[in-house]
Amino acid sequence: MRVTILGNNSALPAFGRHPTAQTVTVYGEVLLFDCGEGTQMQMQRYGVKWKNFNHVFISHMHGDHYFGLPGLINSMSLLGRTAPLHLYGPATLQPILDLILQAANTILKYDLHFHPLPEEATMIADTQAFTVTSFPVQHGIECHGFVVEMKTRGRRILPEKCSEYGIAPEDFEPLKQGMDHVLPDGTVVKNEWVTDVGPRPRKYAYCTDTLYTETILPFISGADMIYHESTYLNDDREKAEARFHSTAAQAAAMALKAGAGQLLLGHFSSKYKELDAFREEAAAIFPNVIVSVQGEAYDL
Amino acid sequence: MRVTILGNNSALPAFGRHPTAQTVTVYGEVLLFDCGEGTQMQMQRYGVKWKNFNHVFISHMHGDHYFGLPGLINSMSLLGRTAPLHLYGPATLQPILDLILQAANTILKYDLHFHPLPEEATMIADTQAFTVTSFPVQHGIECHGFVVEMKTRGRRILPEKCSEYGIAPEDFEPLKQGMDHVLPDGTVVKNEWVTDVGPRPRKYAYCTDTLYTETILPFISGADMIYHESTYLNDDREKAEARFHSTAAQAAAMALKAGAGQLLLGHFSSKYKELDAFREEAAAIFPNVIVSVQGEAYDL
Repeated sequence: MRVTILGNNSALPAFGRHPTAQTVTVYGEVLLFDCGEGTQMQMQRYGVKWKNFNHVFISHMHGDHYFGLPGLINSMSLLGRTAPLHLYGPATLQPILDLILQAANTILKYDLHFHPLPEEATMIADTQAFTVTSFPVQHGIECHGFVVEMKTRGRRILPEKCSEYGIAPEDFEPLKQGMDHVLPDGTVVKNEWVTDVGPRPRKYAYCTDTLYTETILPFISGADMIYHESTYLNDDREKAEARFHSTAAQAAAMALKAGAGQLLLGHFSSKYKELDAFREEAAAIFPNVIVSVQGEAYDL
Repeated sequence: MRVTILGNNSALPAFGRHPTAQTVTVYGEVLLFDCGEGTQMQMQRYGVKWKNFNHVFISHMHGDHYFGLPGLINSMSLLGRTAPLHLYGPATLQPILDLILQAANTILKYDLHFHPLPEEATMIADTQAFTVTSFPVQHGIECHGFVVEMKTRGRRILPEKCSEYGIAPEDFEPLKQGMDHVLPDGTVVKNEWVTDVGPRPRKYAYCTDTLYTETILPFISGADMIYHESTYLNDDREKAEARFHSTAAQAAAMALKAGAGQLLLGHFSSKYKELDAFREEAAAIFPNVIVSVQGEAYDL
Protein backbone atom coordinates (compact mmCIF):
# COMPACT_ATOMS: atom_id res chain seq x y z
CA MET A 1 0.00 0.00 0.00
CA ARG A 2 1.50 3.29 -1.10
CA VAL A 3 0.41 6.91 -0.74
CA THR A 4 1.66 9.41 -3.34
CA ILE A 5 1.24 13.11 -2.68
CA LEU A 6 0.22 15.12 -5.77
CA GLY A 7 -0.59 18.28 -3.85
CA ASN A 8 -0.48 19.19 -0.17
CA ASN A 9 -1.29 22.86 0.09
CA SER A 10 -4.48 24.46 1.33
CA ALA A 11 -6.74 26.74 -0.68
CA LEU A 12 -4.10 28.92 -2.34
CA PRO A 13 -1.34 27.22 -4.32
CA ALA A 14 2.01 28.53 -3.05
CA PHE A 15 5.76 27.77 -2.99
CA GLY A 16 5.28 25.17 -5.72
CA ARG A 17 2.80 23.27 -3.54
CA HIS A 18 -0.39 22.36 -5.39
CA PRO A 19 -3.85 22.01 -3.87
CA THR A 20 -4.92 18.69 -2.38
CA ALA A 21 -4.71 15.40 -4.30
CA GLN A 22 -3.15 12.05 -3.47
CA THR A 23 -3.23 8.52 -4.78
CA VAL A 24 -3.38 5.36 -2.71
CA THR A 25 -2.15 2.26 -4.49
CA VAL A 26 -3.44 -1.09 -3.25
CA TYR A 27 -2.38 -4.30 -4.99
CA GLY A 28 -1.69 -2.20 -8.12
CA GLU A 29 -5.10 -0.46 -8.07
CA VAL A 30 -4.81 3.34 -7.97
CA LEU A 31 -7.37 5.28 -5.91
CA LEU A 32 -7.44 9.08 -6.10
CA PHE A 33 -8.37 11.11 -3.03
CA ASP A 34 -9.38 14.68 -3.87
CA CYS A 35 -8.46 16.34 -7.11
CA GLY A 36 -7.37 19.97 -6.76
CA GLU A 37 -6.67 22.13 -9.79
CA GLY A 38 -3.81 20.76 -11.87
CA THR A 39 -4.11 17.15 -10.66
CA GLN A 40 -3.99 15.72 -14.18
CA MET A 41 -0.71 17.57 -14.79
CA GLN A 42 0.63 16.40 -11.41
CA MET A 43 -0.24 12.80 -12.35
CA GLN A 44 1.75 13.20 -15.58
CA ARG A 45 4.60 14.88 -13.70
CA TYR A 46 4.92 12.18 -11.05
CA GLY A 47 4.31 9.23 -13.35
CA VAL A 48 0.96 8.05 -11.95
CA LYS A 49 -0.41 5.57 -14.46
CA TRP A 50 -4.04 5.57 -15.52
CA LYS A 51 -4.07 1.81 -15.85
CA ASN A 52 -5.98 0.28 -12.94
CA PHE A 53 -7.30 3.72 -12.03
CA ASN A 54 -11.03 3.34 -11.45
CA HIS A 55 -12.00 5.15 -8.23
CA VAL A 56 -12.01 8.84 -7.31
CA PHE A 57 -13.08 10.14 -3.89
CA ILE A 58 -13.92 13.82 -3.28
CA SER A 59 -14.03 14.84 0.38
CA HIS A 60 -15.96 18.11 0.00
CA MET A 61 -16.91 20.92 -2.31
CA HIS A 62 -14.23 23.48 -1.57
CA GLY A 63 -12.52 24.14 -4.86
CA ASP A 64 -9.00 23.23 -3.73
CA HIS A 65 -10.28 19.64 -3.40
CA TYR A 66 -12.00 19.17 -6.76
CA PHE A 67 -11.34 21.89 -9.35
CA GLY A 68 -9.03 19.49 -11.20
CA LEU A 69 -11.78 16.90 -11.59
CA PRO A 70 -13.57 18.21 -14.72
CA GLY A 71 -10.24 18.34 -16.59
CA LEU A 72 -9.24 14.86 -15.48
CA ILE A 73 -12.62 13.41 -16.48
CA ASN A 74 -12.41 15.10 -19.89
CA SER A 75 -8.83 14.11 -20.59
CA MET A 76 -9.49 10.44 -19.85
CA SER A 77 -12.23 10.51 -22.46
CA LEU A 78 -10.00 12.26 -25.02
CA LEU A 79 -7.33 9.63 -24.37
CA GLY A 80 -9.82 6.90 -25.22
CA ARG A 81 -10.72 5.50 -21.81
CA THR A 82 -13.54 2.98 -22.04
CA ALA A 83 -13.42 1.42 -18.54
CA PRO A 84 -16.07 2.72 -16.12
CA LEU A 85 -14.93 5.25 -13.53
CA HIS A 86 -16.45 5.35 -10.06
CA LEU A 87 -16.71 8.78 -8.52
CA TYR A 88 -17.69 9.30 -4.87
CA GLY A 89 -18.48 12.77 -3.56
CA PRO A 90 -21.08 15.09 -2.06
CA ALA A 91 -24.40 15.04 -3.91
CA THR A 92 -23.89 18.65 -5.05
CA LEU A 93 -21.00 17.53 -7.27
CA GLN A 94 -23.16 15.73 -9.81
CA PRO A 95 -25.24 18.66 -11.16
CA ILE A 96 -22.05 20.71 -11.58
CA LEU A 97 -20.41 17.99 -13.67
CA ASP A 98 -23.62 17.50 -15.64
CA LEU A 99 -23.79 21.21 -16.54
CA ILE A 100 -20.10 21.28 -17.49
CA LEU A 101 -20.47 18.32 -19.85
CA GLN A 102 -23.69 19.73 -21.27
CA ALA A 103 -22.19 23.19 -21.95
CA ALA A 104 -19.36 21.56 -23.91
CA ASN A 105 -21.71 19.20 -25.71
CA THR A 106 -19.45 16.39 -24.44
CA ILE A 107 -20.45 12.75 -24.25
CA LEU A 108 -17.79 10.81 -22.36
CA LYS A 109 -16.44 7.67 -24.02
CA TYR A 110 -16.75 5.77 -20.73
CA ASP A 111 -19.36 5.36 -18.02
CA LEU A 112 -18.93 7.75 -15.13
CA HIS A 113 -20.74 6.26 -12.14
CA PHE A 114 -21.45 8.87 -9.53
CA HIS A 115 -21.99 7.68 -5.95
CA PRO A 116 -23.25 10.41 -3.60
CA LEU A 117 -21.65 10.08 -0.17
CA PRO A 118 -24.03 9.12 2.64
CA GLU A 119 -24.20 11.38 5.66
CA GLU A 120 -23.38 8.53 8.09
CA ALA A 121 -20.24 6.39 8.06
CA THR A 122 -20.71 3.80 5.30
CA MET A 123 -18.63 1.28 3.41
CA ILE A 124 -18.88 2.83 -0.07
CA ALA A 125 -16.55 0.55 -2.07
CA ASP A 126 -15.88 -3.14 -1.68
CA THR A 127 -13.64 -4.83 -4.27
CA GLN A 128 -11.44 -7.94 -4.29
CA ALA A 129 -8.49 -5.79 -3.27
CA PHE A 130 -9.82 -3.24 -0.79
CA THR A 131 -12.73 -1.59 0.96
CA VAL A 132 -13.27 2.14 1.38
CA THR A 133 -15.41 3.57 4.17
CA SER A 134 -16.45 7.20 4.30
CA PHE A 135 -17.21 8.96 7.56
CA PRO A 136 -18.23 12.51 8.48
CA VAL A 137 -15.59 15.01 9.61
CA GLN A 138 -16.24 18.55 10.88
CA HIS A 139 -15.67 21.34 8.39
CA GLY A 140 -17.64 24.44 7.40
CA ILE A 141 -19.62 22.44 4.84
CA GLU A 142 -20.45 18.73 4.39
CA CYS A 143 -17.11 16.95 4.44
CA HIS A 144 -15.99 13.32 4.56
CA GLY A 145 -12.96 11.37 5.63
CA PHE A 146 -12.08 7.98 4.14
CA VAL A 147 -10.54 4.75 5.40
CA VAL A 148 -8.96 2.34 2.93
CA GLU A 149 -8.49 -1.23 4.09
CA MET A 150 -6.60 -3.83 2.10
CA LYS A 151 -8.14 -7.25 1.87
CA THR A 152 -6.03 -10.19 2.87
CA ARG A 153 -4.74 -12.18 -0.04
CA GLY A 154 -4.15 -15.27 2.12
CA ARG A 155 -0.80 -17.01 2.57
CA ARG A 156 2.21 -15.96 0.52
CA ILE A 157 3.37 -18.53 -2.08
CA LEU A 158 7.08 -19.48 -2.01
CA PRO A 159 7.62 -20.09 -5.76
CA GLU A 160 10.98 -21.92 -5.39
CA LYS A 161 9.54 -24.35 -2.84
CA CYS A 162 6.49 -25.00 -5.02
CA SER A 163 8.80 -25.63 -7.95
CA GLU A 164 10.83 -28.18 -5.90
CA TYR A 165 7.63 -30.13 -5.24
CA GLY A 166 6.45 -29.74 -8.84
CA ILE A 167 3.41 -27.62 -7.98
CA ALA A 168 2.29 -25.52 -10.98
CA PRO A 169 1.07 -21.87 -10.66
CA GLU A 170 -2.50 -22.87 -11.58
CA ASP A 171 -2.62 -24.79 -8.29
CA PHE A 172 -1.55 -21.82 -6.11
CA GLU A 173 -5.04 -20.55 -5.19
CA PRO A 174 -5.92 -23.38 -2.71
CA LEU A 175 -2.44 -23.00 -1.19
CA LYS A 176 -3.07 -19.27 -0.61
CA GLN A 177 -6.23 -20.27 1.22
CA GLY A 178 -4.19 -22.51 3.54
CA MET A 179 -4.94 -25.93 2.04
CA ASP A 180 -2.38 -28.72 1.65
CA HIS A 181 -1.53 -29.96 -1.86
CA VAL A 182 -1.79 -33.57 -3.02
CA LEU A 183 0.64 -34.61 -5.75
CA PRO A 184 -0.48 -37.02 -8.57
CA ASP A 185 1.28 -39.91 -6.74
CA GLY A 186 -0.76 -39.25 -3.58
CA THR A 187 2.03 -37.49 -1.64
CA VAL A 188 0.69 -34.74 0.61
CA VAL A 189 2.64 -31.44 0.53
CA LYS A 190 1.89 -29.62 3.77
CA ASN A 191 0.82 -26.01 3.23
CA GLU A 192 3.49 -24.56 5.52
CA TRP A 193 6.28 -26.25 3.45
CA VAL A 194 5.50 -24.12 0.37
CA THR A 195 3.88 -20.94 1.75
CA ASP A 196 4.57 -18.31 4.36
CA VAL A 197 2.41 -15.91 6.36
CA GLY A 198 0.88 -13.40 3.91
CA PRO A 199 1.31 -9.66 4.18
CA ARG A 200 -0.69 -8.08 6.98
CA PRO A 201 -3.54 -6.08 5.43
CA ARG A 202 -2.89 -2.39 5.90
CA LYS A 203 -5.30 0.34 6.90
CA TYR A 204 -4.99 3.97 5.78
CA ALA A 205 -7.10 6.90 6.99
CA TYR A 206 -7.51 10.16 5.08
CA CYS A 207 -8.77 13.07 7.21
CA THR A 208 -9.09 16.48 5.51
CA ASP A 209 -10.42 19.16 5.95
CA THR A 210 -11.50 19.01 9.55
CA LEU A 211 -11.51 20.48 12.99
CA TYR A 212 -9.93 18.29 15.67
CA THR A 213 -12.83 16.00 16.47
CA GLU A 214 -12.71 12.74 18.41
CA THR A 215 -15.93 11.58 16.72
CA ILE A 216 -13.71 10.19 13.96
CA LEU A 217 -11.69 7.93 16.30
CA PRO A 218 -13.92 4.84 15.85
CA PHE A 219 -13.21 4.89 12.13
CA ILE A 220 -9.51 5.66 12.04
CA SER A 221 -8.28 3.81 15.11
CA GLY A 222 -5.54 1.28 14.52
CA ALA A 223 -4.68 2.68 11.09
CA ASP A 224 -1.14 1.95 9.92
CA MET A 225 -1.01 5.49 8.61
CA ILE A 226 -3.24 8.51 9.16
CA TYR A 227 -3.13 11.49 6.85
CA HIS A 228 -4.47 14.37 8.90
CA GLU A 229 -4.68 17.94 7.76
CA SER A 230 -2.54 20.46 9.62
CA THR A 231 -3.29 23.74 7.96
CA TYR A 232 -1.73 25.74 10.78
CA LEU A 233 0.73 25.57 13.65
CA ASN A 234 -0.37 25.80 17.28
CA ASP A 235 0.32 29.57 17.34
CA ASP A 236 -2.64 29.94 15.02
CA ARG A 237 -5.00 27.49 16.71
CA GLU A 238 -7.74 30.09 17.05
CA LYS A 239 -7.58 30.88 13.36
CA ALA A 240 -7.59 27.13 12.65
CA GLU A 241 -10.72 26.65 14.70
CA ALA A 242 -12.49 29.64 13.16
CA ARG A 243 -11.80 28.17 9.70
CA PHE A 244 -12.65 24.57 10.65
CA HIS A 245 -9.05 23.43 10.30
CA SER A 246 -6.50 21.71 12.56
CA THR A 247 -3.00 22.39 13.81
CA ALA A 248 0.01 20.08 13.66
CA ALA A 249 -0.32 19.50 17.43
CA GLN A 250 -3.97 18.51 17.04
CA ALA A 251 -3.18 16.14 14.19
CA ALA A 252 -0.54 14.52 16.39
CA ALA A 253 -2.94 14.23 19.33
CA MET A 254 -5.41 12.51 17.02
CA ALA A 255 -2.79 10.03 15.75
CA LEU A 256 -1.83 9.25 19.35
CA LYS A 257 -5.41 8.63 20.46
CA ALA A 258 -6.07 6.53 17.35
CA GLY A 259 -3.03 4.33 18.03
CA ALA A 260 -1.78 5.01 14.53
CA GLY A 261 1.42 3.58 13.11
CA GLN A 262 2.42 6.77 11.33
CA LEU A 263 1.08 10.28 10.88
CA LEU A 264 1.33 12.05 7.54
CA LEU A 265 0.76 15.82 7.66
CA GLY A 266 -0.56 17.96 4.81
CA HIS A 267 -2.88 20.76 3.63
CA PHE A 268 -0.47 23.47 4.70
CA SER A 269 -1.50 27.10 4.67
CA SER A 270 0.12 29.24 2.00
CA LYS A 271 1.46 31.46 4.79
CA TYR A 272 4.19 28.89 5.51
CA LYS A 273 7.14 28.64 3.16
CA GLU A 274 9.18 26.33 5.38
CA LEU A 275 7.51 23.33 7.02
CA ASP A 276 10.09 22.11 9.55
CA ALA A 277 8.07 23.55 12.42
CA PHE A 278 5.17 21.23 11.58
CA ARG A 279 7.35 18.17 12.18
CA GLU A 280 8.74 19.58 15.41
CA GLU A 281 5.35 20.54 16.79
CA ALA A 282 3.79 17.17 15.97
CA ALA A 283 6.78 15.01 16.97
CA ALA A 284 6.65 16.35 20.53
CA ILE A 285 3.30 14.57 20.83
CA PHE A 286 3.54 11.73 18.30
CA PRO A 287 7.10 10.92 17.21
CA ASN A 288 6.36 8.88 14.10
CA VAL A 289 5.35 11.84 11.98
CA ILE A 290 6.11 12.69 8.34
CA VAL A 291 5.66 16.13 6.80
CA SER A 292 4.34 15.22 3.35
CA VAL A 293 6.39 16.39 0.36
CA GLN A 294 4.72 16.88 -2.99
CA GLY A 295 5.77 14.17 -5.43
CA GLU A 296 6.94 11.79 -2.67
CA ALA A 297 5.47 8.33 -2.08
CA TYR A 298 5.06 6.73 1.35
CA ASP A 299 4.74 2.99 1.88
CA LEU A 300 2.63 1.45 4.60
CA MET B 1 0.55 46.42 -25.86
CA ARG B 2 1.97 43.07 -24.80
CA VAL B 3 0.71 39.51 -25.13
CA THR B 4 1.94 36.95 -22.55
CA ILE B 5 1.34 33.26 -23.21
CA LEU B 6 0.34 31.31 -20.08
CA GLY B 7 -0.66 28.17 -21.98
CA ASN B 8 -0.70 27.28 -25.66
CA ASN B 9 -1.65 23.62 -25.90
CA SER B 10 -4.93 22.16 -27.04
CA ALA B 11 -7.24 19.97 -24.96
CA LEU B 12 -4.63 17.68 -23.38
CA PRO B 13 -1.76 19.27 -21.48
CA ALA B 14 1.51 17.84 -22.86
CA PHE B 15 5.26 18.43 -23.01
CA GLY B 16 4.98 21.05 -20.28
CA ARG B 17 2.51 23.05 -22.39
CA HIS B 18 -0.57 24.09 -20.45
CA PRO B 19 -4.06 24.59 -21.87
CA THR B 20 -5.04 27.96 -23.32
CA ALA B 21 -4.64 31.22 -21.41
CA GLN B 22 -2.98 34.50 -22.28
CA THR B 23 -2.88 38.04 -20.98
CA VAL B 24 -2.95 41.20 -23.04
CA THR B 25 -1.54 44.25 -21.30
CA VAL B 26 -2.75 47.65 -22.52
CA TYR B 27 -1.47 50.81 -20.80
CA GLY B 28 -0.80 48.68 -17.71
CA GLU B 29 -4.28 47.07 -17.64
CA VAL B 30 -4.14 43.27 -17.75
CA LEU B 31 -6.85 41.43 -19.74
CA LEU B 32 -7.06 37.65 -19.54
CA PHE B 33 -8.16 35.66 -22.58
CA ASP B 34 -9.29 32.14 -21.72
CA CYS B 35 -8.34 30.45 -18.49
CA GLY B 36 -7.41 26.77 -18.88
CA GLU B 37 -6.72 24.57 -15.86
CA GLY B 38 -3.74 25.83 -13.88
CA THR B 39 -3.92 29.45 -15.07
CA GLN B 40 -3.64 30.87 -11.55
CA MET B 41 -0.43 28.88 -11.05
CA GLN B 42 0.86 30.01 -14.45
CA MET B 43 0.18 33.64 -13.51
CA GLN B 44 2.23 33.14 -10.33
CA ARG B 45 4.97 31.37 -12.28
CA TYR B 46 5.31 34.04 -14.95
CA GLY B 47 4.89 37.01 -12.64
CA VAL B 48 1.55 38.32 -13.92
CA LYS B 49 0.36 40.86 -11.37
CA TRP B 50 -3.27 41.00 -10.22
CA LYS B 51 -3.11 44.76 -9.90
CA ASN B 52 -5.04 46.37 -12.75
CA PHE B 53 -6.54 42.98 -13.64
CA ASN B 54 -10.27 43.53 -14.09
CA HIS B 55 -11.39 41.75 -17.28
CA VAL B 56 -11.57 38.07 -18.19
CA PHE B 57 -12.80 36.83 -21.58
CA ILE B 58 -13.80 33.18 -22.17
CA SER B 59 -14.06 32.16 -25.84
CA HIS B 60 -16.10 28.97 -25.39
CA MET B 61 -17.12 26.20 -23.04
CA HIS B 62 -14.55 23.53 -23.86
CA GLY B 63 -12.76 22.80 -20.62
CA ASP B 64 -9.26 23.58 -21.86
CA HIS B 65 -10.40 27.22 -22.15
CA TYR B 66 -12.00 27.76 -18.74
CA PHE B 67 -11.38 25.00 -16.17
CA GLY B 68 -8.93 27.32 -14.39
CA LEU B 69 -11.56 30.00 -13.92
CA PRO B 70 -13.29 28.76 -10.74
CA GLY B 71 -9.92 28.49 -8.97
CA LEU B 72 -8.81 31.94 -10.11
CA ILE B 73 -12.11 33.51 -9.02
CA ASN B 74 -11.86 31.82 -5.61
CA SER B 75 -8.22 32.66 -5.02
CA MET B 76 -8.76 36.36 -5.74
CA SER B 77 -11.43 36.40 -3.05
CA LEU B 78 -9.19 34.56 -0.56
CA LEU B 79 -6.44 37.07 -1.29
CA GLY B 80 -8.78 39.91 -0.36
CA ARG B 81 -9.72 41.33 -3.74
CA THR B 82 -12.44 43.98 -3.44
CA ALA B 83 -12.36 45.54 -6.93
CA PRO B 84 -15.13 44.35 -9.26
CA LEU B 85 -14.16 41.77 -11.88
CA HIS B 86 -15.79 41.74 -15.32
CA LEU B 87 -16.23 38.32 -16.86
CA TYR B 88 -17.34 37.85 -20.47
CA GLY B 89 -18.30 34.41 -21.76
CA PRO B 90 -21.04 32.19 -23.18
CA ALA B 91 -24.30 32.38 -21.22
CA THR B 92 -23.90 28.74 -20.10
CA LEU B 93 -20.90 29.75 -17.97
CA GLN B 94 -22.92 31.63 -15.38
CA PRO B 95 -25.07 28.78 -13.96
CA ILE B 96 -21.96 26.61 -13.62
CA LEU B 97 -20.15 29.26 -11.59
CA ASP B 98 -23.28 29.88 -9.52
CA LEU B 99 -23.56 26.18 -8.62
CA ILE B 100 -19.85 25.95 -7.78
CA LEU B 101 -20.04 28.93 -5.41
CA GLN B 102 -23.27 27.65 -3.88
CA ALA B 103 -21.89 24.13 -3.26
CA ALA B 104 -18.94 25.63 -1.38
CA ASN B 105 -21.14 28.11 0.47
CA THR B 106 -18.81 30.82 -0.85
CA ILE B 107 -19.66 34.49 -1.01
CA LEU B 108 -16.98 36.32 -2.99
CA LYS B 109 -15.47 39.40 -1.37
CA TYR B 110 -15.78 41.32 -4.64
CA ASP B 111 -18.45 41.83 -7.28
CA LEU B 112 -18.21 39.42 -10.18
CA HIS B 113 -20.04 40.99 -13.11
CA PHE B 114 -20.94 38.42 -15.70
CA HIS B 115 -21.54 39.63 -19.26
CA PRO B 116 -22.97 36.96 -21.57
CA LEU B 117 -21.46 37.23 -25.05
CA PRO B 118 -23.89 38.29 -27.79
CA GLU B 119 -24.25 36.05 -30.82
CA GLU B 120 -23.38 38.85 -33.24
CA ALA B 121 -20.15 40.87 -33.31
CA THR B 122 -20.43 43.48 -30.55
CA MET B 123 -18.20 45.91 -28.71
CA ILE B 124 -18.40 44.38 -25.24
CA ALA B 125 -15.92 46.53 -23.31
CA ASP B 126 -15.11 50.21 -23.71
CA THR B 127 -12.74 51.80 -21.20
CA GLN B 128 -10.42 54.81 -21.24
CA ALA B 129 -7.59 52.55 -22.34
CA PHE B 130 -9.10 50.06 -24.79
CA THR B 131 -12.12 48.53 -26.44
CA VAL B 132 -12.82 44.82 -26.85
CA THR B 133 -15.09 43.49 -29.58
CA SER B 134 -16.28 39.89 -29.67
CA PHE B 135 -17.21 38.17 -32.91
CA PRO B 136 -18.40 34.67 -33.79
CA VAL B 137 -15.91 32.06 -35.00
CA GLN B 138 -16.75 28.56 -36.25
CA HIS B 139 -16.21 25.75 -33.76
CA GLY B 140 -18.28 22.72 -32.73
CA ILE B 141 -20.08 24.81 -30.11
CA GLU B 142 -20.74 28.53 -29.64
CA CYS B 143 -17.33 30.19 -29.80
CA HIS B 144 -16.10 33.75 -29.94
CA GLY B 145 -13.00 35.59 -31.11
CA PHE B 146 -11.95 38.93 -29.65
CA VAL B 147 -10.32 42.10 -30.95
CA VAL B 148 -8.57 44.44 -28.53
CA GLU B 149 -7.98 47.98 -29.70
CA MET B 150 -5.95 50.52 -27.76
CA LYS B 151 -7.32 54.00 -27.49
CA THR B 152 -5.11 56.84 -28.56
CA ARG B 153 -3.62 58.77 -25.68
CA GLY B 154 -2.90 61.81 -27.88
CA ARG B 155 0.55 63.37 -28.38
CA ARG B 156 3.56 62.18 -26.41
CA ILE B 157 4.92 64.67 -23.84
CA LEU B 158 8.67 65.43 -24.02
CA PRO B 159 9.34 66.02 -20.29
CA GLU B 160 12.76 67.66 -20.74
CA LYS B 161 11.38 70.16 -23.25
CA CYS B 162 8.45 70.95 -20.97
CA SER B 163 10.87 71.46 -18.11
CA GLU B 164 12.95 73.91 -20.22
CA TYR B 165 9.85 76.02 -20.79
CA GLY B 166 8.78 75.66 -17.15
CA ILE B 167 5.59 73.71 -17.92
CA ALA B 168 4.44 71.66 -14.90
CA PRO B 169 3.04 68.09 -15.20
CA GLU B 170 -0.43 69.27 -14.16
CA ASP B 171 -0.55 71.20 -17.45
CA PHE B 172 0.30 68.20 -19.66
CA GLU B 173 -3.28 67.10 -20.50
CA PRO B 174 -4.10 69.97 -22.94
CA LEU B 175 -0.67 69.43 -24.57
CA LYS B 176 -1.53 65.73 -25.16
CA GLN B 177 -4.67 66.92 -26.88
CA GLY B 178 -2.59 69.04 -29.26
CA MET B 179 -3.11 72.48 -27.72
CA ASP B 180 -0.42 75.12 -27.38
CA HIS B 181 0.60 76.32 -23.89
CA VAL B 182 0.57 79.94 -22.73
CA LEU B 183 3.12 80.86 -20.06
CA PRO B 184 2.22 83.29 -17.22
CA ASP B 185 4.07 86.09 -19.07
CA GLY B 186 1.90 85.54 -22.17
CA THR B 187 4.54 83.69 -24.21
CA VAL B 188 3.00 80.98 -26.43
CA VAL B 189 4.78 77.61 -26.40
CA LYS B 190 3.83 75.82 -29.63
CA ASN B 191 2.60 72.28 -29.08
CA GLU B 192 5.14 70.71 -31.45
CA TRP B 193 8.05 72.25 -29.45
CA VAL B 194 7.25 70.16 -26.35
CA THR B 195 5.44 67.06 -27.69
CA ASP B 196 5.92 64.42 -30.32
CA VAL B 197 3.59 62.15 -32.27
CA GLY B 198 1.98 59.75 -29.79
CA PRO B 199 2.19 55.96 -30.07
CA ARG B 200 0.02 54.50 -32.83
CA PRO B 201 -2.88 52.65 -31.18
CA ARG B 202 -2.39 48.94 -31.68
CA LYS B 203 -4.96 46.29 -32.60
CA TYR B 204 -4.75 42.66 -31.50
CA ALA B 205 -7.02 39.82 -32.65
CA TYR B 206 -7.49 36.56 -30.72
CA CYS B 207 -8.94 33.72 -32.81
CA THR B 208 -9.35 30.35 -31.09
CA ASP B 209 -10.79 27.71 -31.49
CA THR B 210 -11.98 27.88 -35.07
CA LEU B 211 -12.13 26.43 -38.50
CA TYR B 212 -10.56 28.54 -41.23
CA THR B 213 -13.40 30.97 -41.93
CA GLU B 214 -13.19 34.23 -43.88
CA THR B 215 -16.29 35.50 -42.11
CA ILE B 216 -13.94 36.81 -39.40
CA LEU B 217 -11.91 39.00 -41.79
CA PRO B 218 -14.00 42.17 -41.31
CA PHE B 219 -13.18 42.08 -37.59
CA ILE B 220 -9.51 41.16 -37.61
CA SER B 221 -8.29 42.96 -40.74
CA GLY B 222 -5.45 45.36 -40.21
CA ALA B 223 -4.55 43.93 -36.81
CA ASP B 224 -0.96 44.52 -35.75
CA MET B 225 -0.92 40.98 -34.44
CA ILE B 226 -3.29 38.06 -34.92
CA TYR B 227 -3.23 35.07 -32.60
CA HIS B 228 -4.75 32.25 -34.63
CA GLU B 229 -5.07 28.69 -33.46
CA SER B 230 -3.08 26.09 -35.41
CA THR B 231 -3.92 22.84 -33.70
CA TYR B 232 -2.52 20.77 -36.57
CA LEU B 233 -0.14 20.84 -39.51
CA ASN B 234 -1.37 20.67 -43.11
CA ASP B 235 -0.84 16.88 -43.19
CA ASP B 236 -3.74 16.63 -40.78
CA ARG B 237 -6.06 19.19 -42.39
CA GLU B 238 -8.90 16.67 -42.66
CA LYS B 239 -8.66 15.88 -38.96
CA ALA B 240 -8.49 19.63 -38.27
CA GLU B 241 -11.67 20.24 -40.23
CA ALA B 242 -13.50 17.33 -38.63
CA ARG B 243 -12.65 18.75 -35.19
CA PHE B 244 -13.39 22.39 -36.11
CA HIS B 245 -9.73 23.38 -35.89
CA SER B 246 -7.18 24.99 -38.22
CA THR B 247 -3.75 24.18 -39.58
CA ALA B 248 -0.64 26.38 -39.51
CA ALA B 249 -1.06 26.97 -43.26
CA GLN B 250 -4.64 28.11 -42.78
CA ALA B 251 -3.68 30.44 -39.93
CA ALA B 252 -1.03 31.95 -42.22
CA ALA B 253 -3.51 32.35 -45.09
CA MET B 254 -5.84 34.16 -42.70
CA ALA B 255 -3.08 36.52 -41.52
CA LEU B 256 -2.19 37.27 -45.16
CA LYS B 257 -5.78 38.05 -46.16
CA ALA B 258 -6.25 40.16 -43.04
CA GLY B 259 -3.16 42.23 -43.81
CA ALA B 260 -1.84 41.49 -40.32
CA GLY B 261 1.46 42.79 -39.00
CA GLN B 262 2.38 39.56 -37.24
CA LEU B 263 0.91 36.12 -36.77
CA LEU B 264 1.18 34.33 -33.42
CA LEU B 265 0.45 30.58 -33.53
CA GLY B 266 -0.87 28.51 -30.63
CA HIS B 267 -3.27 25.81 -29.39
CA PHE B 268 -1.02 23.00 -30.53
CA SER B 269 -2.17 19.40 -30.46
CA SER B 270 -0.57 17.19 -27.85
CA LYS B 271 0.60 14.92 -30.68
CA TYR B 272 3.41 17.39 -31.48
CA LYS B 273 6.43 17.51 -29.22
CA GLU B 274 8.50 19.75 -31.49
CA LEU B 275 6.90 22.80 -33.09
CA ASP B 276 9.47 23.93 -35.70
CA ALA B 277 7.30 22.57 -38.50
CA PHE B 278 4.52 25.00 -37.57
CA ARG B 279 6.80 27.97 -38.25
CA GLU B 280 8.05 26.52 -41.52
CA GLU B 281 4.58 25.70 -42.80
CA ALA B 282 3.18 29.12 -41.93
CA ALA B 283 6.22 31.16 -43.01
CA ALA B 284 5.94 29.84 -46.56
CA ILE B 285 2.65 31.75 -46.78
CA PHE B 286 3.08 34.57 -44.25
CA PRO B 287 6.71 35.24 -43.26
CA ASN B 288 6.14 37.31 -40.13
CA VAL B 289 5.09 34.37 -37.98
CA ILE B 290 5.89 33.50 -34.37
CA VAL B 291 5.36 30.08 -32.81
CA SER B 292 4.20 31.04 -29.33
CA VAL B 293 6.27 29.79 -26.40
CA GLN B 294 4.67 29.37 -22.98
CA GLY B 295 5.92 32.02 -20.60
CA GLU B 296 7.11 34.37 -23.36
CA ALA B 297 5.76 37.88 -23.92
CA TYR B 298 5.31 39.48 -27.34
CA ASP B 299 5.13 43.24 -27.87
CA LEU B 300 3.00 44.86 -30.55
